[in-house]
Amino acid sequence: MSKTTVNKTAHPFDKTRFDALLNRRFFYAPAFEIYGGVAGLYDYGPPGSSLQANIIAEWRRHFIVEEAMYELDTTIMTPAPVFETSGHVARFADWMVKDTGNGEVLRADHLVKNVLEARLEGDREARGAAPAAPADKDKDKDKKKKKQVKTTAVKLDDAAVATYESILAQLDNYTGPELGELMRTHAITNPSSGNPVGEPQQFNLMFASSIGPTGQHPGYLRPETAQGHFLNFNRLLEFNNGRVPFASAQVGRAFRNEISPRAGLLRVREFTMAEIEHFVDPLDKSHPRFSEVAEVELVLLDKYTQAAGNSTTRRMTVGAAVAAGVIANETLGYFVARIHAFLLRIGIDGQRLRFRQHMANEMAHYAADCWDAEIQNSVGGWTECVGCADRAAYDLSVHAAATKQPLLVRQALKEPIVEERAVAVWDRKALGKTLKGDAGTVTAAVEALDEAGLMRLQGELAQGPTRIMTEAGKEFTIEPGMLTIERKTFKTSVREFTPNVIEPSFGIGRILYCLLEHSFWSREQDVERGVLSLPAVVTPTKVLIVPLSARAEFDPLVKEVSMKLRKAGVHARVDDSNTSIGKRYARNDELGTAYGVTLDFASVQNGTMTLRERDTTDQRIGPIDDVIAVVEALVHGGMEWDEACKRLPAYDGVQAVE
Amino acid sequence: MSKTTVNKTAHPFDKTRFDALLNRRFFYAPAFEIYGGVAGLYDYGPPGSSLQANIIAEWRRHFIVEEAMYELDTTIMTPAPVFETSGHVARFADWMVKDTGNGEVLRADHLVKNVLEARLEGDREARGAAPAAPADKDKDKDKKKKKQVKTTAVKLDDAAVATYESILAQLDNYTGPELGELMRTHAITNPSSGNPVGEPQQFNLMFASSIGPTGQHPGYLRPETAQGHFLNFNRLLEFNNGRVPFASAQVGRAFRNEISPRAGLLRVREFTMAEIEHFVDPLDKSHPRFSEVAEVELVLLDKYTQAAGNSTTRRMTVGAAVAAGVIANETLGYFVARIHAFLLRIGIDGQRLRFRQHMANEMAHYAADCWDAEIQNSVGGWTECVGCADRAAYDLSVHAAATKQPLLVRQALKEPIVEERAVAVWDRKALGKTLKGDAGTVTAAVEALDEAGLMRLQGELAQGPTRIMTEAGKEFTIEPGMLTIERKTFKTSVREFTPNVIEPSFGIGRILYCLLEHSFWSREQDVERGVLSLPAVVTPTKVLIVPLSARAEFDPLVKEVSMKLRKAGVHARVDDSNTSIGKRYARNDELGTAYGVTLDFASVQNGTMTLRERDTTDQRIGPIDDVIAVVEALVHGGMEWDEACKRLPAYDGVQAVE
Repeated sequence: MSKTTVNKTAHPFDKTRFDALLNRRFFYAPAFEIYGGVAGLYDYGPPGSSLQANIIAEWRRHFIVEEAMYELDTTIMTPAPVFETSGHVARFADWMVKDTGNGEVLRADHLVKNVLEARLEGDREARGAAPAAPADKDKDKDKKKKKQVKTTAVKLDDAAVATYESILAQLDNYTGPELGELMRTHAITNPSSGNPVGEPQQFNLMFASSIGPTGQHPGYLRPETAQGHFLNFNRLLEFNNGRVPFASAQVGRAFRNEISPRAGLLRVREFTMAEIEHFVDPLDKSHPRFSEVAEVELVLLDKYTQAAGNSTTRRMTVGAAVAAGVIANETLGYFVARIHAFLLRIGIDGQRLRFRQHMANEMAHYAADCWDAEIQNSVGGWTECVGCADRAAYDLSVHAAATKQPLLVRQALKEPIVEERAVAVWDRKALGKTLKGDAGTVTAAVEALDEAGLMRLQGELAQGPTRIMTEAGKEFTIEPGMLTIERKTFKTSVREFTPNVIEPSFGIGRILYCLLEHSFWSREQDVERGVLSLPAVVTPTKVLIVPLSARAEFDPLVKEVSMKLRKAGVHARVDDSNTSIGKRYARNDELGTAYGVTLDFASVQNGTMTLRERDTTDQRIGPIDDVIAVVEALVHGGMEWDEACKRLPAYDGVQAVE
Repeated sequence: MSKTTVNKTAHPFDKTRFDALLNRRFFYAPAFEIYGGVAGLYDYGPPGSSLQANIIAEWRRHFIVEEAMYELDTTIMTPAPVFETSGHVARFADWMVKDTGNGEVLRADHLVKNVLEARLEGDREARGAAPAAPADKDKDKDKKKKKQVKTTAVKLDDAAVATYESILAQLDNYTGPELGELMRTHAITNPSSGNPVGEPQQFNLMFASSIGPTGQHPGYLRPETAQGHFLNFNRLLEFNNGRVPFASAQVGRAFRNEISPRAGLLRVREFTMAEIEHFVDPLDKSHPRFSEVAEVELVLLDKYTQAAGNSTTRRMTVGAAVAAGVIANETLGYFVARIHAFLLRIGIDGQRLRFRQHMANEMAHYAADCWDAEIQNSVGGWTECVGCADRAAYDLSVHAAATKQPLLVRQALKEPIVEERAVAVWDRKALGKTLKGDAGTVTAAVEALDEAGLMRLQGELAQGPTRIMTEAGKEFTIEPGMLTIERKTFKTSVREFTPNVIEPSFGIGRILYCLLEHSFWSREQDVERGVLSLPAVVTPTKVLIVPLSARAEFDPLVKEVSMKLRKAGVHARVDDSNTSIGKRYARNDELGTAYGVTLDFASVQNGTMTLRERDTTDQRIGPIDDVIAVVEALVHGGMEWDEACKRLPAYDGVQAVE
């Protein structure tokens, strides 16, 4: 039905034009720009803030509302003991190396990656072969630009190529000393100076501060929101009437003092996360809604494939993956599928989305399984944007141990467990008389015996006095009059357990960046005319209201249309600036504004309004209220543009101003 | 129409019951509670998080959407130079004193306040007079409880009473040395130890950290969001097509390392703020919508009244206050009125809200005028919850000076300004020949002359050679052939100016706490049954769906009602826990849930549903869709309960379960 066929791939992705658009329209910008900026810190301007707010609002609907999760808002500033317990003080670190000449600090794994990728690219040039696959090529190109790793056309022998490719496929699997060994073996130096680098050193990524006027309480800025969930577990459990499963959710800022962040929004020192902690019975990780997602097909890259030095993905349904044990359990699989649905819903290109499983060394030692949603982009290649881990009982266990506060579920058993057990029944008088001050250690020694030990003791006592060794290794004689071993019946009606945690964790800034890249294209007839095809559900402004001119006679109509759209819950902005309608629409194509309505003299005379769709630039016309009803259905009701075209006739009169 | 008359003041406000409710229902709790907690850090649980999110959503509607402001999201971590420029490194400090015996650290102004208030209370007891006005009495009572400032019934002489009252009325006006002087004069010691305290010292309230792996970039956590707006001024101005006025807005976390926070949510080390920076022409602070608010009546406490040692408020319309110069200008008055409307809208008691003007010493030196919205509560008495300041051109000026980046508006003048000025026209050849290397300093000296100076020089040169003194104090002779003074015409078509900033700044946690207090009451017939009468617009859950029992036959209806409410945009939760309906409603009265719908056997048979209103416990009945339509109108359409009672008949059958 729509009159224009849109070709969004007429021009190849142009990072320079794309960056210029984001900068010109203030989606985001380096923070403290007028002070020279600080690496890894960015401010979001009006469209970036709105886009982020809309992504978060949709996240809340998709996860919190849909699954009746409990939202939390916990503090960023955290006293040091919490991160000592969680392991962050000891282990939340990256390996860095120092240039032995100029002291420049580099991240060890990034250095290996950049140098080996540059050598492979040089080899491809030397062989005169086709360049790498588009994704990798984009990535390499960008790396060269950003890091100045010079590519020289040097042919490698075939074994070296295979070795480098294998190293790159499992880069996340190396320890610091192994990275140091790789750098020596493959003569990796700092490309910007040519100097050798020193041994990899751990650098803790948490920002430190101290709390209180006397500096007595060391604290850290949280590097994730998760600990705030775990520390409040008992309160949450009570809120859920003592039962699992339930999930808490939190959207908030986190901080990582990255070593040398140079990848735009993909690697920043301060960022917004959205995290879910789903608490579940370790004996039952089934999910009641699993059947709703079992047929969803995903692109998976499992740990065995990677460990074999290979990056080949395969398509599988979630149901098949869980059945085959590729994904550890139903609950983990359910969340992987829900993450997939969320990313598609906000506009991520499904062709550039895959789920990669963590390899053994890469995964936290306590985790049972972990899958990253990786989104392909020109800066970082396949980039982790969401993690989804089964953290087992680790977090609750360590905090319970450190604080001596039980973090447990007490579950009434439907059928009490009844069991018969042997127990020692003492004649306290006879015991005291014979053993006196040693009575305590002797009873402890007996009561430490297991069922078999007690039965053996019973047999021995039936034949007369016997001897028993205490924990300290001292032997005592026990006489038959002191105790009898009896069998008694015990009934347990409560089961206690530490729940396991399934954790989907979203980096909102990374998702936002990838979404912007996936949404960007240029009009076929004019490469200068960039468009951001952001879906209406997340785009900063849904509708632009464009009066033909700033003449006062349009004012009442502008007010009326604004008010009606606001009442319909559709976010609209008026642009009454002094430029042509075409220029105003072009500006809003760059801002991703989904629709435009134009008020002109016909509106004043006939009460009609035109409606423009961003991607096709199609224009339709109808009475103002009809157009508003269509807009509402397009924005909130899931109506497609083709359907809108059936409800509103085409309008050809405005081509001139485009 | 409603059958029950509700008496919300049957029981006096009981802080202990109130705190127990907030704790039991996990509105908020001390952060890191299982680690012993840290003063001034709180976590929000599910109802607290939702209430906060709803207050912020309403704030966005009331301010950002209504006035088409530009939202920002800037970083918390800030390099030190920014706060050196803004003055925070030098001046963002409180005065603290140390107990000379045990080293305890106290905030100087709080110490003076607590001790003098305790003495005045002791005096009232000794005189056998009526206790202080309820507000002050609550405040004193709480202070005693929290700070253990013992009140002893000691009569003061009348002059001392007057002096203390005068000191308290202007407490925010004292400098640190003045507070030290007060402590000496009035023998103020640490009440918890009886020890004297040392001289007040400044303690900077910013949390310090450092950015990057080598610790080379000192940074601070922002104590307000405002600098993020100012630093992005040029980008925002461009986004607004180069014109003022416009406003930016930001909701985000800020940090203050308070000396010894002991007032719950009223004084915390980490908090959520919502700030607006409205940039305006300094020559025109009128506001186009001022007429909409001119008749709004406010309770004002101006600076002159306070400086006279008095706390008497007066009622005035915003229009009258601006006309009389009590409030400095229309834009400031407009925002004060909008703040007032916002606070009433979310449920703050208008009787416990006033606007207090900053006194001379209290106000930042650059500010033109500043008004705090103070909300009365049992912990802090009248507590600043919103500030509304005219910051003049200070912020943009200091950042522009420090960075050499102009932060200016360039305005095309409608009428260019044409003026004739005297200028020096040199004969460069004659000049160089005579003065050689000194030519530069001499021309600079001449060009530094003002109009009158140049005219005088012209007169002197007409009579022959004359002398001029350079900036360095050296004299040179100028001859008539070297230069002539001519009058030329200059045309200026652009006006450059630094905009002024009006800043409404909201402490969300303080507002939230006061709102909870104002919303709390106990049922007349049972003091144990607490209710939070939070307005539907902000309450965490709008509707509770209560199936009579967990029997499977209710499941389809629960799903249907849930889905229909979700479609109507009404946030609902299902409570199918194993307790009586009465207990489930009582729990939700504590959570502030506005309405409840009950699904019972009649629902299954007749398709009816009952609707319960929280405050009155009135129950109405109707077909499910009718009830949902009424709920939607109540929650979103501003319908009053009386109107709902006209649309749905009363239901008396459920009294038994209450």
